[in-house]
Amino acid sequence: MTEIKAPKRLKKIYEGKAKIVYETDNPDMLIQYFKDDATAFDATKRGTIIGKGVINNKISSNIFELLESKGVATHFVKQLSEREMLIKRLKIIPLEVTMRNITAGGMAKLLGLEEGIVLEAPVFEYHYKDDSLHDPLINDYHALALKLATPEELKLIEKVSFTINKVLKDFFIKRDVVLVDFKLEFGKTQKGRVLLGDEISPDTCRFWEKGTNRKLDKDRFRRDLGSVEEAYQEMLKRVIG
Amino acid sequence: MTEIKAPKRLKKIYEGKAKIVYETDNPDMLIQYFKDDATAFDATKRGTIIGKGVINNKISSNIFELLESKGVATHFVKQLSEREMLIKRLKIIPLEVTMRNITAGGMAKLLGLEEGIVLEAPVFEYHYKDDSLHDPLINDYHALALKLATPEELKLIEKVSFTINKVLKDFFIKRDVVLVDFKLEFGKTQKGRVLLGDEISPDTCRFWEKGTNRKLDKDRFRRDLGSVEEAYQEMLKRVIG
Repeated sequence: MTEIKAPKRLKKIYEGKAKIVYETDNPDMLIQYFKDDATAFDATKRGTIIGKGVINNKISSNIFELLESKGVATHFVKQLSEREMLIKRLKIIPLEVTMRNITAGGMAKLLGLEEGIVLEAPVFEYHYKDDSLHDPLINDYHALALKLATPEELKLIEKVSFTINKVLKDFFIKRDVVLVDFKLEFGKTQKGRVLLGDEISPDTCRFWEKGTNRKLDKDRFRRDLGSVEEAYQEMLKRVIG
Repeated sequence: MTEIKAPKRLKKIYEGKAKIVYETDNPDMLIQYFKDDATAFDATKRGTIIGKGVINNKISSNIFELLESKGVATHFVKQLSEREMLIKRLKIIPLEVTMRNITAGGMAKLLGLEEGIVLEAPVFEYHYKDDSLHDPLINDYHALALKLATPEELKLIEKVSFTINKVLKDFFIKRDVVLVDFKLEFGKTQKGRVLLGDEISPDTCRFWEKGTNRKLDKDRFRRDLGSVEEAYQEMLKRVIG
């Protein structure tokens, strides 16, 4: 492999709730910049979690490296600075994948279940990324009808998601953190290769401290539980510690 | 096969929105009685469609006979009277299956699509039968987590549903009726055999007249389109004609 030249950050091409994406002088590479902004409930709740961008960039970089080492293909190239990550350019597939090991959040509400029930097998979900529709839960047939992906791509995404779940569960439990559920996004390179995109952080995962069930993720912000920054810092310590 | 004795109708064991179910003197057989009552939108809308029970019993009996002749195992035994159908006793699996050939109703709303788009392939859906949760759309993983059925049973239900769709689409198009979508329910005999249950009628299917797209189903009631009874009569004529 030739070494990757330090890329030049060019124009902003996308600004989301928690990240900004910039073009670079390499057409196959982008820079994602991690902000401290936090939103919840379809962006009806907004706030700032001081230092979140730095922490999520660091945690995500570590997790992407871990996943790559386990054979999961991701968009991660390298961490460039405190808040910048160099990534491969993807066309994001407008599907949010959720993997669940324990009932919480949307699934608990959907099925009328208490939070905290350990599932016998992981639950895999697709949500259609569409703000105006509130990212509805859909199934494979809907994804195909909407032509969001091919049958082969869906099969790959499902398989890889289960692999990621296994790798992450093992990684976090060794750090006394229970991986309750998490969200993934996938995208396609120009050559049509499907890679894991986005980020993996306390913004996109539910982390419960083993034994105490103390929440160490964005639910502290969503549910006004306080000690939000501390929870993010705690997770960073456990990931890099 | 020994001939089935005329069963004796005994005590009512269930009363739903459109049907009453009675025990009989045969522990493996029930009688379902078709009412004229109609409800919609989680039973917030209620009314009567005169003669509906008689028509739905007749249409369902014909359709179940057709499906049996094509190798689909159903709970149907025989029509007993204008409003009574003898059926095999099932424990209903609390999953509503929806098969869709054209966008309409819930799927159109869910995905932000116009009604009337012909789907390239049928869309198969599970809804969790729970009034208090408003019968939410779920996927296979949810059904398994809730232990509503085994993986093998889900696979069977999906396969049979596609067969039923094919048989019914062919049957109706010959009668100048487009099968837009329909709902199925399955149940298990005491021996664990999975059979198609419930009914197949203008209450549970969307039927559009070929060419005109005139609705010949319960949407006339749901959407206050008028000529509700006439639509049911028209469908009966086309089924038995």
